Amino acid sequence: AKLWGGRFEESTTDAVEKFTQSISFDKALYKHDIMGSRAHASMLARQGLITDGDRDKILKGLDEIEGRIERGEFAWRTDREDVHMNIEAALTDLVGEPAKKLHTARSRNDQVCTDFRLWCRDAIDAIVLRIKHLQVALVNLALKNEGLIVPGYTHLQRAQPVLLAHLLLAYVEQLERDAGRLLDCRVRMNFCPLGACALAGTGLPIDRFMTSEALGFSAPMRNRLPFSLAVPFCCFVLPVDFASLELLMTLIYINSIDAVSDRDFVLEFLSANSITAIHLSRLGEEWVLWASEEFGFLIPSDSVSTGSSIMPQKKNPDPMELVRGKSARVIGDLVSLLVLCKGLPHAYNRDLQEDKEPVFDSVKTIMGMLEVSAEFAENVTFNQERIRNALPAGHLDATTLADYLVKKEIPFRTSHDIVGRAVALCVSRNCLLQDLSLDELRSISVTFDKDVYEFLGVENAIKNFSSYGSTGSECVSNQLDYWVTKLDISRKREG
Amino acid sequence: AKLWGGRFEESTTDAVEKFTQSISFDKALYKHDIMGSRAHASMLARQGLITDGDRDKILKGLDEIEGRIERGEFAWRTDREDVHMNIEAALTDLVGEPAKKLHTARSRNDQVCTDFRLWCRDAIDAIVLRIKHLQVALVNLALKNEGLIVPGYTHLQRAQPVLLAHLLLAYVEQLERDAGRLLDCRVRMNFCPLGACALAGTGLPIDRFMTSEALGFSAPMRNRLPFSLAVPFCCFVLPVDFASLELLMTLIYINSIDAVSDRDFVLEFLSANSITAIHLSRLGEEWVLWASEEFGFLIPSDSVSTGSSIMPQKKNPDPMELVRGKSARVIGDLVSLLVLCKGLPHAYNRDLQEDKEPVFDSVKTIMGMLEVSAEFAENVTFNQERIRNALPAGHLDATTLADYLVKKEIPFRTSHDIVGRAVALCVSRNCLLQDLSLDELRSISVTFDKDVYEFLGVENAIKNFSSYGSTGSECVSNQLDYWVTKLDISRKREG
Amino acid sequence: AKLWGGRFEESTTDAVEKFTQSISFDKALYKHDIMGSRAHASMLARQGLITDGDRDKILKGLDEIEGRIERGEFAWRTDREDVHMNIEAALTDLVGEPAKKLHTARSRNDQVCTDFRLWCRDAIDAIVLRIKHLQVALVNLALKNEGLIVPGYTHLQRAQPVLLAHLLLAYVEQLERDAGRLLDCRVRMNFCPLGACALAGTGLPIDRFMTSEALGFSAPMRNRLPFSLAVPFCCFVLPVDFASLELLMTLIYINSIDAVSDRDFVLEFLSANSITAIHLSRLGEEWVLWASEEFGFLIPSDSVSTGSSIMPQKKNPDPMELVRGKSARVIGDLVSLLVLCKGLPHAYNRDLQEDKEPVFDSVKTIMGMLEVSAEFAENVTFNQERIRNALPAGHLDATTLADYLVKKEIPFRTSHDIVGRAVALCVSRNCLLQDLSLDELRSISVTFDKDVYEFLGVENAIKNFSSYGSTGSECVSNQLDYWVTKLDISRKREG
Amino acid sequence: AKLWGGRFEESTTDAVEKFTQSISFDKALYKHDIMGSRAHASMLARQGLITDGDRDKILKGLDEIEGRIERGEFAWRTDREDVHMNIEAALTDLVGEPAKKLHTARSRNDQVCTDFRLWCRDAIDAIVLRIKHLQVALVNLALKNEGLIVPGYTHLQRAQPVLLAHLLLAYVEQLERDAGRLLDCRVRMNFCPLGACALAGTGLPIDRFMTSEALGFSAPMRNRLPFSLAVPFCCFVLPVDFASLELLMTLIYINSIDAVSDRDFVLEFLSANSITAIHLSRLGEEWVLWASEEFGFLIPSDSVSTGSSIMPQKKNPDPMELVRGKSARVIGDLVSLLVLCKGLPHAYNRDLQEDKEPVFDSVKTIMGMLEVSAEFAENVTFNQERIRNALPAGHLDATTLADYLVKKEIPFRTSHDIVGRAVALCVSRNCLLQDLSLDELRSISVTFDKDVYEFLGVENAIKNFSSYGSTGSECVSNQLDYWVTKLDISRKREG
Repeated sequence: AKLWGGRFEESTTDAVEKFTQSISFDKALYKHDIMGSRAHASMLARQGLITDGDRDKILKGLDEIEGRIERGEFAWRTDREDVHMNIEAALTDLVGEPAKKLHTARSRNDQVCTDFRLWCRDAIDAIVLRIKHLQVALVNLALKNEGLIVPGYTHLQRAQPVLLAHLLLAYVEQLERDAGRLLDCRVRMNFCPLGACALAGTGLPIDRFMTSEALGFSAPMRNRLPFSLAVPFCCFVLPVDFASLELLMTLIYINSIDAVSDRDFVLEFLSANSITAIHLSRLGEEWVLWASEEFGFLIPSDSVSTGSSIMPQKKNPDPMELVRGKSARVIGDLVSLLVLCKGLPHAYNRDLQEDKEPVFDSVKTIMGMLEVSAEFAENVTFNQERIRNALPAGHLDATTLADYLVKKEIPFRTSHDIVGRAVALCVSRNCLLQDLSLDELRSISVTFDKDVYEFLGVENAIKNFSSYGSTGSECVSNQLDYWVTKLDISRKREG
Repeated sequence: AKLWGGRFEESTTDAVEKFTQSISFDKALYKHDIMGSRAHASMLARQGLITDGDRDKILKGLDEIEGRIERGEFAWRTDREDVHMNIEAALTDLVGEPAKKLHTARSRNDQVCTDFRLWCRDAIDAIVLRIKHLQVALVNLALKNEGLIVPGYTHLQRAQPVLLAHLLLAYVEQLERDAGRLLDCRVRMNFCPLGACALAGTGLPIDRFMTSEALGFSAPMRNRLPFSLAVPFCCFVLPVDFASLELLMTLIYINSIDAVSDRDFVLEFLSANSITAIHLSRLGEEWVLWASEEFGFLIPSDSVSTGSSIMPQKKNPDPMELVRGKSARVIGDLVSLLVLCKGLPHAYNRDLQEDKEPVFDSVKTIMGMLEVSAEFAENVTFNQERIRNALPAGHLDATTLADYLVKKEIPFRTSHDIVGRAVALCVSRNCLLQDLSLDELRSISVTFDKDVYEFLGVENAIKNFSSYGSTGSECVSNQLDYWVTKLDISRKREG
Repeated sequence: AKLWGGRFEESTTDAVEKFTQSISFDKALYKHDIMGSRAHASMLARQGLITDGDRDKILKGLDEIEGRIERGEFAWRTDREDVHMNIEAALTDLVGEPAKKLHTARSRNDQVCTDFRLWCRDAIDAIVLRIKHLQVALVNLALKNEGLIVPGYTHLQRAQPVLLAHLLLAYVEQLERDAGRLLDCRVRMNFCPLGACALAGTGLPIDRFMTSEALGFSAPMRNRLPFSLAVPFCCFVLPVDFASLELLMTLIYINSIDAVSDRDFVLEFLSANSITAIHLSRLGEEWVLWASEEFGFLIPSDSVSTGSSIMPQKKNPDPMELVRGKSARVIGDLVSLLVLCKGLPHAYNRDLQEDKEPVFDSVKTIMGMLEVSAEFAENVTFNQERIRNALPAGHLDATTLADYLVKKEIPFRTSHDIVGRAVALCVSRNCLLQDLSLDELRSISVTFDKDVYEFLGVENAIKNFSSYGSTGSECVSNQLDYWVTKLDISRKREG
Repeated sequence: AKLWGGRFEESTTDAVEKFTQSISFDKALYKHDIMGSRAHASMLARQGLITDGDRDKILKGLDEIEGRIERGEFAWRTDREDVHMNIEAALTDLVGEPAKKLHTARSRNDQVCTDFRLWCRDAIDAIVLRIKHLQVALVNLALKNEGLIVPGYTHLQRAQPVLLAHLLLAYVEQLERDAGRLLDCRVRMNFCPLGACALAGTGLPIDRFMTSEALGFSAPMRNRLPFSLAVPFCCFVLPVDFASLELLMTLIYINSIDAVSDRDFVLEFLSANSITAIHLSRLGEEWVLWASEEFGFLIPSDSVSTGSSIMPQKKNPDPMELVRGKSARVIGDLVSLLVLCKGLPHAYNRDLQEDKEPVFDSVKTIMGMLEVSAEFAENVTFNQERIRNALPAGHLDATTLADYLVKKEIPFRTSHDIVGRAVALCVSRNCLLQDLSLDELRSISVTFDKDVYEFLGVENAIKNFSSYGSTGSECVSNQLDYWVTKLDISRKREG
């Protein structure tokens, strides 16, 4: 019989039981469910709602159950619907009467929210760690190839030369914002719903502050959030609003209906994951391109490549293709959750049971994407010779040449036009800008002088960059220093 | 001829011109484009890249153009592609040679990013303001109906009684988190890309810090972000990380490639809007339900209702249906942007031109949804009599009765079972729990005593709630006080 | 060592192997993979590419492997990547050399497409069957409640009376279109890619027509399919294009690149599922509403309801909430697939490995939704008494009254206005239209006569409907007859 | 005053009026709205519901209004909400009393559905035409480059050689399925809802068959449509169901509630567009890649390229980037519509007003994408010399070599392994397979003989393909013939 079966005369049909069960996936919450029950039992005892003896039996029983689950000895039962009922019923089997008191002043509505927030909090920490690992791998790759110039693209057409390190650090910077988003989300999610009960709270004398603190929703938070997570990207607010700060000391929901019925914390979480996934999909695309025969800039090691079942010569950069492709499911998961929540009235609706699988899938996927991207970054080589040979094509120095004319006080638009004509000449001749003689250049504009050759060629172009954040060697070196320090990388620059 | 036409021999076909133009929508950025050009021209002059005379002519010309646009006298031209080219070309028509120098050390790539961020920053401020208005309207509605008890629902089945104010404040709390998300996004977006040029920066001696500051990307930010926006939900980080704070003083991108090619700032923005839209869709659903004949709890005034072209008796809560429905386009806009950015290699790709319309549409839609929700809230009446008459149905006091038994030391599970049987008895008799005689109750459990009647009935149930955040009168009153103060509402409680 | 390992010197890292494996989910294709291999082996033998002896050993080995899998005795290995490699390698373990010849003139690219199409074809048949079951359940429910009048809603406001059967048949009609979409998709998907090999076909003398026919891609279709349905080659124009007809007799891809690299067949499939899911979400919403205390029209039996862990009186229509909610994942699955395919160059990319899980999930979910909806329909009762009592509210007869005036030659707009005023009078008096005296009615319009009372009241309103497809009793009865015949229902109308 | 204002005492607030209006976008339906009104008025007259005189005045008034709209002289008014009310009210201004009778036995609910279906039907025809134009452009491009061999890719790694024509025809085949989906959708959508009125039909003696026929919903279809396509009633089973066939002769909804409240016809339409958009996004990606410096296979003419505002040398394939990017909005539009419809109860809800803009946007976008893709195809040149020079790289003949061994009775897996080792040798020597001496080859496998050189090299590889649908010259030539005939292309093969 179901634990809620009091007023029911018929039992649920098999099809309905199978369709409505969640134990097949929500058992992933077992550790956090037990954590929540421990805190709840301790609070009930301190408040006199159960005896200390009951509490001790409950805690001992929960230890036993946790052990069984971890040893794979726990029999999950579909007829017990979900993780909460499975554990509570097993506890009753184990310790009897005291277990029947555990659900005092608690509903599955606040219980599942609590479990899920605890789970997500851990997931965010795990993702942020992997973001950092990928950042480190990218910075190391930048250090290994510090002076290497590559073509910079817009429209996938060659645009201007950039240092490879500069390009790699663009990803590092994007990932830093990704971490910032996750940490903001963590802060906003880290409020304790336990004690909201079904939706309205309770008349029993519970202490929500005690459970909140025990579960790390309040004070521990203050200690645990490392300030350096403050990214360059959050937390700006000085002087602090002390009134609201006081409120924050107790990170519990002040409205019980909101506490149990909103899922914005996972919507925000999956949004953040989706944006990270987009960044990784772009890295995936870029590296798949660069590993092609036509680009030939990047050589993945055999350990991160796969072959073909029919074509013996193939060596494919599959991990990065899958990184690109798996972004799709992270986005699909977000869309599922958005559609799920749309138009639901308050408070809890059973639809919300569907909130978990997209989150589990999104987390698993994004973690894999980050791990494999880092592993790939650690196992690629840039084909410096091929890159160097390829650099002359595409007139990457054309803009530098236009800037040369600007320095000679030619208005930029006129400069642009002059250089455009010089490029057209090169195209017709199939030569480089630096191959044009001074006379040829002067036939287009008399402003050209012999110092022009200090601005032509890819190396000269790179040398000329100087603006803050640009691809100039010193600017990039400063960026590298910043990240090496921030990410606490022990620097072993090559050569 | 196109401004970039130097090396081109054929002009673009009509179909391509029409397909690739963006002027039909990006002219919405004109104000921010001009703002950016002003800052850029001033910087160029101070750095000696143009003369003060050129700068003055440019600034005067920009004033003239801005005036014309605002007076509707500016002729936008499709052959000039976009807002940037339209304004620059018009400036050239107006002031000649100096205008040709304006694009020095600037590309449309960093220009459009700058314009768009400035536009989004303003949009966020406008949305946050509307969120506050809706919060005020909801709090006022709560104040107007302060003692009113309504059924609380889970699964759209009657669950427990709640105060209407409690339910309304759940939305207020959700909206507060919505504002928090937008403000976090604003902080993360408020970095200046100007000076990143096409993707690599420049060799011309520009001062990115000067333009950044002039456009409010740095110092002004520090002053302008009102600390009270610190929601109860962000900004936790004490002691502050002064190293990163220093960095923040200059809110410019340190990596030019990242600056021009990432669109995570709009992805985050539209994610935040989508979550707000979900909240509003739930409000819409709830109020549409409550306005139905069957619920009959809520009466919209004629001024926020519409009729039917065929059925003369109809009075429909259309604005809230549309609030619910329009959430769909906010979500669709987010999906468009995510799909757009997926798998693009660095740096700028023309695909990104498609980033604007979804953002414009999302902003316009969410603003309308917030405004109309507030207007609706100001024009509804709760049908107190009908609600009161409806309260007895659904055994809303059953959980209170179970808590009564818990207080008598019956384990909760047993209490739940006992009350379940009492409810079954009521169902078979078609009566209320409070209609059962003590003998009848005791036939189910001898623990029932005559004090049980202090726990039965909806009013008694409400009186019994006491936990923090619960629907108990005092708890809700505290919540109301909190919001009245925070939202700076001058309180005129009724009755 | 991997089967494709010839040119590889290092083995794949664990993280990459885990990330790129698909065996954890694509083993679901085992039956269709074996089916394909059987057909392929038989063809290779007939074409002289392998000996009959080899073929026999292969077929015997495949039987053995299929048996093991079905008995749960097959050890799936992650290091063998996917279902194809697992089965082929196991076959090699089992029968040795001949197994090494099975992959002749075949690539995993065409193999997986073939397997997946066969799987989807079966899935469509299974879904269409469940659609029919739900239709039958709905028609039976309509028959059981044949004369029952319920309020019809627009804007969730009461609009006009309708027969419950009419409302239920609206769903039946929608489901019929859903089946139509699936069957169109089946036709368009039922083309054989086997023999396209990696992307370019082969120089070995294979017979694609033979494998296609053996796998039911051609001949069986020829018999079942009216020629004009010969979609992918649009075919709506008569006289029939006999050239293309001939082509269609062999439903194989005529372009090998298209055959292996397109996934439009699953995009179309998941689109069709999404539309069905939308229909079911609407049914879910409607029945959740109708089961609420406030509507009270629909009583689910205990066998399709669940209770609350805290509130003893609750009886929730969870299955229909979940039907509504699970529509979200069907839509999310579609979005995943769309995002996945966007912007991929030809031909196969590893991203496409991600095509399977969304399809598996979509199919499993939609099947569950259909089954449970049917089961729910079989286990609900309409509360006829409560419905009858509720009918007078909402002036459902107002439009009938306006039509009355039209019959008296009052222009419709004027009629609408007159009835609007009559309704306003009722609202102020809190009475029904039929409660107004003739004098009162005539004070609004002198056109009213005493025959007006034959048009007032819900029963009269229903009697008056007569247009084709309307809710008039005879029209609905005709609809019922149509569906009873079409769905082959043995009719036992009640009372 | 609103046309539905009878029972209303207050007028709508400005904000609500602005938020709920649809005239700003639904005026696009004017032509189809007038078409519907014409048919409706004629039917009302024939049925005696209005006089012939009234009808004539209405028809004349509608002509006048249509003329004004087309001449830009019609003043659309927001206070008149939508296109229906604007036209009806203008008609009343114009012809007085008779106009008030036009809305007899009609509601905006069935009216808007009718208009929208007529609009969509035209849109589908326009899209299918553009699909055909793109197919023609692609076939012509294939003809122009008939013998040209290009690398075929999987994983963006070089796989096997293919004829360019073969690759282009893959797109042609995909587009053919796209057209098929649209035409199926057209059939399923082409049912007439007019006469369903608000949701329940009417008691007035209308003739739905007459309006349906007048609007092309029935008879014209009967002629054009092979009966078995009679979709929505799935119809795949022969012998044909003559009962339902008769029903189909009049393509009108048999259930009025379904007729006004379902939007599956646009969900299906936008799904079809999304799949087409995916195909075009892949074409966009491929051509952007091929136009890059690194590939260098494709040269767009200046007339379909654009330049850079800062980099004078740039020539960007913008149209194809935008084709790729705009796929995002087509998908976003579909998602909007799905979210919109999710969970709406029957019948019409105001949310559904939001169904139009996504459809308008999707149609406009997909038409532009098709047009510009065709124009691009007509204006590109393949760089035959560069392609030829590039072909040797990537060992495109490796699979042909493996097939060679298979023909010598080496099991395929062993062949694959042997060739893998040969490729490894080439990689270490930086040479081609054909550069290996027979001795070297025989040192890997003694099966190699001197005839092996007839299988090496890209030209030999192509010559060897012979399977149906393969890239062999004859196979591709057959495909070309098929499409040239089917698309009615007058063939002028080059050289």
